[in-house]
Amino acid sequence: MTDTTTLLARRNRALGAGAPLFYEHPLHIVRGEGCYVYDADGRRYIDMYNNVPCVGHANPVVVEAMTRQQATLNVHSRYLHEAVVEFCERLAALHGPQIESVILSCSGTEANEVALRMARFATGRRGILCTDATYHGNSELVSSLSRLGQSRSSNPSVRAFPFPEKFRPIAPGLGEDALCDAYLEKLNDAIAELQASGEGVAAMIVCSILANEGLPDIPAGFMPRAAAMVREAGGLVIADEVQAGYTRTGHWWGYEVTGFTPDIVVTGKPMGNGLPLAATAASRALVETFRARTRYFNTFASSPLQAAVGMAVLDEIEQRDLRSNVATVGAALKAALTQRKGTSDTIGDVRGHGLFIGVEMVKPANNAPDSELATRVINRLKDRGFLTSNAGAFANVVKIRPPLPFSQADAAAFLLAWDATIAELVSDRRGA
Amino acid sequence: MTDTTTLLARRNRALGAGAPLFYEHPLHIVRGEGCYVYDADGRRYIDMYNNVPCVGHANPVVVEAMTRQQATLNVHSRYLHEAVVEFCERLAALHGPQIESVILSCSGTEANEVALRMARFATGRRGILCTDATYHGNSELVSSLSRLGQSRSSNPSVRAFPFPEKFRPIAPGLGEDALCDAYLEKLNDAIAELQASGEGVAAMIVCSILANEGLPDIPAGFMPRAAAMVREAGGLVIADEVQAGYTRTGHWWGYEVTGFTPDIVVTGKPMGNGLPLAATAASRALVETFRARTRYFNTFASSPLQAAVGMAVLDEIEQRDLRSNVATVGAALKAALTQRKGTSDTIGDVRGHGLFIGVEMVKPANNAPDSELATRVINRLKDRGFLTSNAGAFANVVKIRPPLPFSQADAAAFLLAWDATIAELVSDRRGA
Repeated sequence: MTDTTTLLARRNRALGAGAPLFYEHPLHIVRGEGCYVYDADGRRYIDMYNNVPCVGHANPVVVEAMTRQQATLNVHSRYLHEAVVEFCERLAALHGPQIESVILSCSGTEANEVALRMARFATGRRGILCTDATYHGNSELVSSLSRLGQSRSSNPSVRAFPFPEKFRPIAPGLGEDALCDAYLEKLNDAIAELQASGEGVAAMIVCSILANEGLPDIPAGFMPRAAAMVREAGGLVIADEVQAGYTRTGHWWGYEVTGFTPDIVVTGKPMGNGLPLAATAASRALVETFRARTRYFNTFASSPLQAAVGMAVLDEIEQRDLRSNVATVGAALKAALTQRKGTSDTIGDVRGHGLFIGVEMVKPANNAPDSELATRVINRLKDRGFLTSNAGAFANVVKIRPPLPFSQADAAAFLLAWDATIAELVSDRRGA
Repeated sequence: MTDTTTLLARRNRALGAGAPLFYEHPLHIVRGEGCYVYDADGRRYIDMYNNVPCVGHANPVVVEAMTRQQATLNVHSRYLHEAVVEFCERLAALHGPQIESVILSCSGTEANEVALRMARFATGRRGILCTDATYHGNSELVSSLSRLGQSRSSNPSVRAFPFPEKFRPIAPGLGEDALCDAYLEKLNDAIAELQASGEGVAAMIVCSILANEGLPDIPAGFMPRAAAMVREAGGLVIADEVQAGYTRTGHWWGYEVTGFTPDIVVTGKPMGNGLPLAATAASRALVETFRARTRYFNTFASSPLQAAVGMAVLDEIEQRDLRSNVATVGAALKAALTQRKGTSDTIGDVRGHGLFIGVEMVKPANNAPDSELATRVINRLKDRGFLTSNAGAFANVVKIRPPLPFSQADAAAFLLAWDATIAELVSDRRGA
């Protein structure tokens, strides 16, 4: 086994320095099983970060489906294949009747490209609304929605509105209804700007639970009223369920939690338990308009391999009733962390849904975001054998998002490590 | 087994009508092995189209590598993993010393997005040069290089130049050198337009053997001289090796055949024998500039699964010396088809390299493209158990591109079917 320093140097050359890595001392993982991963020294970690291996690392049902299909047939989609049709039927049936047809692709980026272009073709307009702290992928078009990389302001078709939240509200001292109105007013301004510039409104794209924004508590009614405003302006509503969907919240879809009905749904990360697999789902009319305009074909997508693996993942979620596990374990874990907020002045807020929880770390003096503390917490948790990361507009939110089979026992072990970590860091600070 | 009509109706709803299908009567394939595929009725076809399962359908070495890795670990790239580094090192080493570092992704579209944005960041310019009959993928940016879908002319950063060819030259009657000069003059005009508009030249992107253009015979010297002109204008040269690379031509790379040295190389289709896998390779400086500007991360890419499968494919190509097989069988098949050009006035031209051959079907009276005849040839070959498709600026080129282990015996069987097909169609025409 190559030592970490040598491997890192080789990686910096072969992938280029700047290829992202987690943790002060990067982790060299060699094996996974269920909710656990093991490093090159044989040390076990409880995985509380990875949503892609959603039914567990090295899930044997998925491995078996993948092996069987790759050993039988894996070919592109210009031939008939029954399982591909069946998988798309199953995906569509997981939504309301407005979702009828599916375009499969290989990544959330590709699926969001399809969604945005679909909305543009259908409406004849180009303007896209998104929040001011989002991320939807890495292509030129999709990355222009993000604060990272290419500047959003360089794309005249994109307007960002402040993401709605109750913890650091745009206007302090308002009641929830008035706060909701204040955020909707900002969305209305963005719509008006797109209309005045001639771009018009093709779509609003949002993560249904605002995951990259830090899982904020959203003023009640914002999402359905925002969706109605966008439709009033002639636009479509795109739910990015890449992180929020697939029972992550204890519901099948994030939009059930925040209470709106999308026209287009994008899914990705958990769909293939690690096989590249993503989807854009919509009405048949929307999908066929897109297909007629683009003759869309994706070499690796809608393959028998994607279908077989995708159905094995759905089978595992359904047969093991992982949605109930997520709801139960997630609620207990959130309650336990919320309790700790009452006893620790460095925890500003505990938010989230199901097994997707954010703990906002703050400076006790003024509740200001403390991203440095969040980074220390994440690294010390890793030393104790628990893998998390950070999120949010200020990167000060500890992000907890384990594989779906995460158990009460795993949660109990984590809470012990959490308490020890916070005690150690508070003690460090007092000693400093 | 569902009957074809019912399955097609279900597919039209679940995927949306317009999801592309091959052949007048779509083929319902259920199994593959090596260079053969089998339909739902158990009928065998010799696959002469599919370059994705490059080391053969259901290749057992690939299946074993995929199974072993998925059963061990498949996780994102923000942890250290030795095989991911090793795979990128092996990929870079397949090129000259100017290629040092690799960014893995999940599709040729994603890899071309990376290449184009990399060139833009590195040069500080936005203009992109491409041929007038190309296709590089399906995102908004990449599809704007294509004649299909969104109009190229709507993207002010893109300028197309006429693809160079000897069969239907832009100026008839010229010698090869003068013809080369005439095409270079057109490229020069496109460069001048980008410079005059203020876009400048970021890159020229070309398939190294102009596959979608119909595999034309290119006037000698065009590619290296075009590359020099682009560099003179401050741009970079991107070789799209998604179709041309990976020993398809009997050489590792298409750019070896057409004699130029790219700054950025994009690979895709054959890399994972069906697993979504693509790469953008360049100098370390180019890759690191891109990474610094974008903090590029791709959820499913640079995974242990991509590395394990990608290396199994390279192992198969190297250990079975498939490059030699491609060179030998490809040369014999091309010679046999070229011989038939002499005896059939419907074959205008036979072109290509290795196991990538195009047969241009024409109207005998005036050598005009006959896409209808090409379509009939392809459908009748399918009835005889041989899978091909069409390509080229006029869709009149029968495209022959089998898996790399395609044998002399397979080629001999194909030639019998070809002769029978042409005889039947000529007889039909006389009878009509």
